Amino acid sequence: RSEGSEPSQTKNNVPRLKLSYKEMLETNNLVTFEGLANSSAYHTLLLDEEKGRLLVGAKDNIFSFNLLNISKDKAQIPWTASPTRRDECKWAGKDLLRECAHFIKVLLPFNQSHFYVCGTGAFHPVCSYLEVGKKPEDGVFRLATHVENGRGKSPYDPKLLTASMLIDGELYAGTSADFMGRDFAIFRTLGKHHPIRTEQHDSRWLNDPRFVGVHLIPENDNPEDDKIYLFFRENAMDGEHAGKATYARIGQLCKNDLGGHRSLVNKWTTFLKARLICSVPGSNGIDTHFDELQDVFLISTKDPKSPVIYGVFTTSSNVFKGSAVCMYSMTDIRRAFLGPYAHRDGPSYQWVPFQGRVPYPRPGTCPSKTFGGFDTTKDLPDEVVTFARSHPAMFNPVNPINNKPIIVKTDVDYKFTQMVVDKVEAEDGLYDVMFIGTDMGTVLKVVAIPRSSWHDLEDVLLEEMTVFREPVAITAMELSTKQQQLYLGSDIGVSQMPLHRCEVYGKACAECCLA
Amino acid sequence: RSEGSEPSQTKNNVPRLKLSYKEMLETNNLVTFEGLANSSAYHTLLLDEEKGRLLVGAKDNIFSFNLLNISKDKAQIPWTASPTRRDECKWAGKDLLRECAHFIKVLLPFNQSHFYVCGTGAFHPVCSYLEVGKKPEDGVFRLATHVENGRGKSPYDPKLLTASMLIDGELYAGTSADFMGRDFAIFRTLGKHHPIRTEQHDSRWLNDPRFVGVHLIPENDNPEDDKIYLFFRENAMDGEHAGKATYARIGQLCKNDLGGHRSLVNKWTTFLKARLICSVPGSNGIDTHFDELQDVFLISTKDPKSPVIYGVFTTSSNVFKGSAVCMYSMTDIRRAFLGPYAHRDGPSYQWVPFQGRVPYPRPGTCPSKTFGGFDTTKDLPDEVVTFARSHPAMFNPVNPINNKPIIVKTDVDYKFTQMVVDKVEAEDGLYDVMFIGTDMGTVLKVVAIPRSSWHDLEDVLLEEMTVFREPVAITAMELSTKQQQLYLGSDIGVSQMPLHRCEVYGKACAECCLA
Repeated sequence: RSEGSEPSQTKNNVPRLKLSYKEMLETNNLVTFEGLANSSAYHTLLLDEEKGRLLVGAKDNIFSFNLLNISKDKAQIPWTASPTRRDECKWAGKDLLRECAHFIKVLLPFNQSHFYVCGTGAFHPVCSYLEVGKKPEDGVFRLATHVENGRGKSPYDPKLLTASMLIDGELYAGTSADFMGRDFAIFRTLGKHHPIRTEQHDSRWLNDPRFVGVHLIPENDNPEDDKIYLFFRENAMDGEHAGKATYARIGQLCKNDLGGHRSLVNKWTTFLKARLICSVPGSNGIDTHFDELQDVFLISTKDPKSPVIYGVFTTSSNVFKGSAVCMYSMTDIRRAFLGPYAHRDGPSYQWVPFQGRVPYPRPGTCPSKTFGGFDTTKDLPDEVVTFARSHPAMFNPVNPINNKPIIVKTDVDYKFTQMVVDKVEAEDGLYDVMFIGTDMGTVLKVVAIPRSSWHDLEDVLLEEMTVFREPVAITAMELSTKQQQLYLGSDIGVSQMPLHRCEVYGKACAECCLA
Repeated sequence: RSEGSEPSQTKNNVPRLKLSYKEMLETNNLVTFEGLANSSAYHTLLLDEEKGRLLVGAKDNIFSFNLLNISKDKAQIPWTASPTRRDECKWAGKDLLRECAHFIKVLLPFNQSHFYVCGTGAFHPVCSYLEVGKKPEDGVFRLATHVENGRGKSPYDPKLLTASMLIDGELYAGTSADFMGRDFAIFRTLGKHHPIRTEQHDSRWLNDPRFVGVHLIPENDNPEDDKIYLFFRENAMDGEHAGKATYARIGQLCKNDLGGHRSLVNKWTTFLKARLICSVPGSNGIDTHFDELQDVFLISTKDPKSPVIYGVFTTSSNVFKGSAVCMYSMTDIRRAFLGPYAHRDGPSYQWVPFQGRVPYPRPGTCPSKTFGGFDTTKDLPDEVVTFARSHPAMFNPVNPINNKPIIVKTDVDYKFTQMVVDKVEAEDGLYDVMFIGTDMGTVLKVVAIPRSSWHDLEDVLLEEMTVFREPVAITAMELSTKQQQLYLGSDIGVSQMPLHRCEVYGKACAECCLA
């Protein structure tokens, strides 16, 4: 690992422009939806650019806002848990107001006219279909009366998250699937196949994970090889770390995985995970790690197979509070998944790179014509499935680009929670402009500018804007490049702000919009 | 581990009284020796209370100061390396001014009239005897012409430290014993016995240690059971921690260890080490560790077998800088050494508590009538020596009293380097008043005051005083309770200050001297 250059640490935590909540409103840089008295938890945001709407899933309600201005022509569908469910939830010892309600956790495009919506249903997850019509002028916004079981789709506990994605009528969700919040898994439900999930009761597969993102990334031009990548943090595996620790992970699955035939029946046979490192190299060889993955954002490149992955991390310590952003390349990620499997001979052994013979086809490879030999995971040789079952983790971690974070923030009273990235064309090339949400209701606008080369970036804090009336955590962030707007969710409401505030600077736009 | 109360973290880093260097001088709270142009590194301090002198070992010089006032009747003995040695040192690629001089590293009472002195001798350690006479009025202060080999007593490299102690004519020293600074060991030299040391080239015994202290602590009333305890930091053993890490250690030895007969000949057979934990419990179960042990101070209790041990720690991270003080009891330390040995079956195994049969007498036990059976370590059964050789580390660490630090300091521009503790009687009982030296030339005076009980201490920063003209690290600290003075060493000179500054507060002494 290169230790040549200093870690990119923002010594100066003072932004070039700082706007309070009041200033944001006064300068018309903020439109807010202040929330309803009987709702909260505006955490599930979905952009419908075609129809010009922002859909928001919250406590007991689904909202539809006008993307141009969220304070105009808002629509709302109340969706509560039945009194019976709420009573059951309360009898089970849960808090009636904060837990025994219907918190919307999943809101995904299903087809041209419908969205798929799931919520906690007072610790009894349910899903349904939200009809929005085919065209904006249809003005349709109604919930189907038909309700489906939401287990494996939405968590029971509103405090927990689901990372979910719907492709080809199938729902991929990393979530908690039981009342106690102990059975975490990655599920595929809906669609024509039998539901499929990760192995249960095996802490090597998943160890108390918190899912923050899921994305489909093609492996090559053959869709048979398409992979689903999940991003989460979890407890380090037994023997992986001295004492308790959180590790950030990337997990992979084949989209066409149908589970095993004799073993791993209706379980993923292509699941693998690798550690995502985000650390500042120490001159003494002791690195400072940021392990609590909070959010990921993928930014596309010319090559759809190789998006750049931004990860937002915080520290695990309650003494030293800090945040960092690391970038990862798909090349490094694929290299980790093609590297040695983590292996140990038993509980008293260390994890070592597996040195023995890896069965063919290599576990983690998708059934396809590309690598030949098998059409479906059900045809996999037993020894491949057995190996896959006991070797879900890779030995090598994925290191960030340049082996260090692009942003490190310490000695501030906030932590990063969310991030989106906007590509902005400036005179001297394309810049990634990062919008980072914090746990104090603020948004930071940061650009990474090359110091001497693209391997040595300096982050510049351009703006710090307060976007909620109270210091609440920003829990959702959606970027519309078409509208040039940012949409933000929190516990107390929804906010909207333009990406750029050229008029505030009062100078020529070219100068201000990229500092 | 208790997680009930919040970590004792000084949220308020502002002292009740802050005195600059100028203010310290103006208020007669500081006497300084500003150093000589041809000397530096005033790091080796020794109090001679009987003769009322402070002895200081430095670069190319030994000094003797008046304890009452170090600026009065100073005596000085130049002791340089020979031009030949200096040339050899220079030819070996070392820096002539900063490395190829004679840096005094050891200065210990030898008998009623002599001190034993060792130094680096331009990367060729040498020792000699410093005569001071039997009575103060003798006025003797001269170095013997006879020079001894200093290997295993003083390091070669002036950057490295020696923790040393002289008892019954024998010198115990934790140091580096070669030119390259790779062979670190704990030695016993001088005296009538053959020199003895730790096993060489075995990273389980010592792994790049930095010694900070050595103390004799009786085990019981039988002096045969007397033990020497060494305090150091070192690299974690292979397999002890994921990635590189520093661990703080306490090591034990029997004073009457003579080495083995067939195996471990002239090596310690009673060496054991345990990890010293100084960490703040995290609400998520992830603790924040302070592992870089900088200094220890023992404060005696009524029971000479049970001093309280104060440890000064800093973090290993170059991103998050912080310092902490932890307290340890001998009960907890002895329990760790009587607990399971750390064991692993091979390099790919984890360290586990040794579950098998421990040979008798239990390795680490001193030969004595107390536990019977053997008179000298040379009579130890082979299997005991073999076991001791391969099991130098204990599995259980030593946790601090109350399982958390008594002081945690973050978000300040200094780090702790040294500490002494003064017991002060106040109206409501005995208080430990801590004087903590920093790397910025300041001394902090801190008291730990019980909040609700003695298990819940709150540290109060009483004073912050600048005691050197430049922000240099305080590298040595000696407390004279008799004189009620503190003596401080640094690279640029020596300073003296009274323990209390009642006149500065300008109030009744009872009120001011304990806040």
